[in-house]
Amino acid sequence: MARDERSVTPQSEDFSAWYNDVVFRAELADRGPVRGSMVIRPYGYRIWELLQADLDGRIKATGHQNAYFPLLIPQSYLQREAEHIEGFAPELFTVTHAGGKELEEPLVIRPTSETIVGEMMAKWISSYRDLPLLLNQWANVLRWELRPRMFLRTSEFLWQEGHTAHATAAEAIAETMLALGFYQDVATQTAALASVAGEKTPGERFAGAVRTFTIEAMMRDGRALQAGTSHFMGTNFAAAFGVTYTSESGTAELCQTTSWGMSTRMIGGLIMTHGDDKGLVLPPALAPYQVVIVPIGRAEQAAAVVSATGLAATLRRAGIRTHVDDRPHLSPGFKFNDWEMRGVPIRLELGPRDLAAGTALMSRRLNYREPGAGKQAIPLDAAPGRLADELAAFQTMLARRAADFRDEHTAVVNTWREFTAAVAVGWALALACGDQACEDEIKAETTATARAIPLDGEPEQGRCIRCRKPSAYGQRVIFARAY
Amino acid sequence: MARDERSVTPQSEDFSAWYNDVVFRAELADRGPVRGSMVIRPYGYRIWELLQADLDGRIKATGHQNAYFPLLIPQSYLQREAEHIEGFAPELFTVTHAGGKELEEPLVIRPTSETIVGEMMAKWISSYRDLPLLLNQWANVLRWELRPRMFLRTSEFLWQEGHTAHATAAEAIAETMLALGFYQDVATQTAALASVAGEKTPGERFAGAVRTFTIEAMMRDGRALQAGTSHFMGTNFAAAFGVTYTSESGTAELCQTTSWGMSTRMIGGLIMTHGDDKGLVLPPALAPYQVVIVPIGRAEQAAAVVSATGLAATLRRAGIRTHVDDRPHLSPGFKFNDWEMRGVPIRLELGPRDLAAGTALMSRRLNYREPGAGKQAIPLDAAPGRLADELAAFQTMLARRAADFRDEHTAVVNTWREFTAAVAVGWALALACGDQACEDEIKAETTATARAIPLDGEPEQGRCIRCRKPSAYGQRVIFARAY
Repeated sequence: MARDERSVTPQSEDFSAWYNDVVFRAELADRGPVRGSMVIRPYGYRIWELLQADLDGRIKATGHQNAYFPLLIPQSYLQREAEHIEGFAPELFTVTHAGGKELEEPLVIRPTSETIVGEMMAKWISSYRDLPLLLNQWANVLRWELRPRMFLRTSEFLWQEGHTAHATAAEAIAETMLALGFYQDVATQTAALASVAGEKTPGERFAGAVRTFTIEAMMRDGRALQAGTSHFMGTNFAAAFGVTYTSESGTAELCQTTSWGMSTRMIGGLIMTHGDDKGLVLPPALAPYQVVIVPIGRAEQAAAVVSATGLAATLRRAGIRTHVDDRPHLSPGFKFNDWEMRGVPIRLELGPRDLAAGTALMSRRLNYREPGAGKQAIPLDAAPGRLADELAAFQTMLARRAADFRDEHTAVVNTWREFTAAVAVGWALALACGDQACEDEIKAETTATARAIPLDGEPEQGRCIRCRKPSAYGQRVIFARAY
Repeated sequence: MARDERSVTPQSEDFSAWYNDVVFRAELADRGPVRGSMVIRPYGYRIWELLQADLDGRIKATGHQNAYFPLLIPQSYLQREAEHIEGFAPELFTVTHAGGKELEEPLVIRPTSETIVGEMMAKWISSYRDLPLLLNQWANVLRWELRPRMFLRTSEFLWQEGHTAHATAAEAIAETMLALGFYQDVATQTAALASVAGEKTPGERFAGAVRTFTIEAMMRDGRALQAGTSHFMGTNFAAAFGVTYTSESGTAELCQTTSWGMSTRMIGGLIMTHGDDKGLVLPPALAPYQVVIVPIGRAEQAAAVVSATGLAATLRRAGIRTHVDDRPHLSPGFKFNDWEMRGVPIRLELGPRDLAAGTALMSRRLNYREPGAGKQAIPLDAAPGRLADELAAFQTMLARRAADFRDEHTAVVNTWREFTAAVAVGWALALACGDQACEDEIKAETTATARAIPLDGEPEQGRCIRCRKPSAYGQRVIFARAY
């Protein structure tokens, strides 16, 4: 097969076409038959399972418990919180018939579960002793999508949604920040994304939230991707669903609640942070296969396959996810391209000469500001330790590469001209007046939106980048085009 | 709190009321707001997670890969396989509106995914080299339910559904039996259920299947519970969705497909196999907490709690799921009842006298045909090994108790009188004519149905238990009332 049939559109030519090429050719996902739907193929789903296991461990280690709430919610529930229904009404899927009959009340498919969780929390919580109630759910949710994109915007997606109830606002805010910390740690340590943690401006808050916090990651085209959000609800949902508790002194009080979610859109973030013109690049922590071994040679192929299988077993025992590509009808060159497309961090070639020398030929999927690129012979008897080190270094390298890219594409701007130049290629740190109409104008002119008020921002006052009115928020805000 | 407020309806008085009492008081699940819906609470969901991890390991170890297919399926897909739509039409939930508009074609919420998987397999399979294609999905499915029961029949449930495509019927049947083996192993080794593996009679087959195999487990009221099913589809779905491959010799061939599923109804099976009048009894393999430690004493409580916490850490390091019940406002007696209700296999009491003696007082949740029931002092320094042994013995004991109960409640019957007596309290092994009208009459008179033609049945011919016509199937069939 000719190289060009399998290659992808270059990023520099059309980033969006590049993205789709990678999604389909790396067999991460496929379009489903219904508009906006997606099938997650085994290779993509395995990435999700690895991400899930990592995040689930963090959630459980902090005392949260998983539960499962129904998919279908009475339409009236969503209407109990005014902002909530206003925000979600345009995205709802509605079930009107079941068992061949029309339902008395239409049911909506959950776009998120605050309402049904609120209804159940009201049943389960009675005393201060029942607090905090720390729940999490792994589930599918549906939101009607007019401009679908695989992983980033599909009408159905998979996620976790944490839902907690607390006695005080201070505890609920601490929980909101704890969950945001999960997301920042997963984004940085596990997915090797470069992100910024911050608070959303009022116009970008979750429908029904008092405060919304976000992790915004920078993609390789300079756009921002919201990689996880955490919401402090105050008593908004508790009041709508009667989630109350009796305090130690005997008074009836409303609970303070939170919710927080991270979804399969993270896979889109991985693709757009690390991928290149050869295809996907995966951080070892989320790679279905961390090492792929390609046996080389014709007459001796059987021997190379036997050795590769043995080496793979050794590596697996050392906790390294390893695959042997022993497909007999494909050439080594085809296989190299195939695993580069699929983003496998390390490839080992094993041929007769390598076997005779007791080595394997190692190639890294990507090199970044490192000397010694290219293939290296590694001794087979030291392979597990050496590869564990290489994988750790690869993970660190990807995170540094992403952070460098983010830093190089983030500009502190003080004029409108600087602003438009910055958001054309990356992020702008600007002062803003906090007025929704002004934010709307900025969006209309540049397609950039206020992504986050960074948590680590320095105090600063001045004039709005757009309208020159006095700035709000007491610090700079990140503006960017976003997914 | 008085004992009677927390106890459950005795099994002998009303098994169905006992079941509901256990589900709600052990906090496994709660009723959702929509008819037939269920909320799986953390304690019940943790059992599901343990079952999932066990089954998922078996599925992956045999070369299957997880994937995810869309929830919503075009209505027309289900109509492509005539028997399939006939079977599922009465159970469908239909989405008619999305994003505030009426859809051009109504979508159904998946009751099972053969159709959408078939559609995608047709896209993914082209050559014999693409076979076998071995997929599995963990998902929620919805089937409208008129007579809901928690875990057993709810309008939404969680399950896995395996979907595979093969070149030959022989390979597909081997796969069908492999999956049935997963279910029998999970049922026996993990859930400690007493089950029989067999084939369904034609009237009980999955809608669209050529052959359906089942694991039927005996519940403590003598009824059967279908604990997992595995279907050989022949080319029925492949023909409906155009799932074809080019053979080695270049001819176009239809694939042979299978599907197989196990669901949250297994939790109902656990409850009804092992539970007693004190509540739930859990096999250690699926117990969220295998050991619960209750610190005893007033003034010394702090010391007991510290020791209990240390012991719990030691046990956890040894891989034993351990919980310390340090709720200060509850008495030990209340806690004992509470953990009995929740079915924890082993309880340890740790008080000042125990600590002074370097021991803990161990109680098993259930004893069966064993001497030495009652509390036993175990030395703290040998606790991890001793408790691991006790847990293994407890698992074996539960499985033996269930198998004994099944054997004592299964009768080989040759007359109608024997048959009705047998199915009133358990299972009947009877010859049957295989005529659907006759099976319908048997059901009308006794509510018993043909559950399975056991795989290990001895060849036998004779006359139908009901109509005295010559028997079919060449062996006896299990009849029982069923969930």
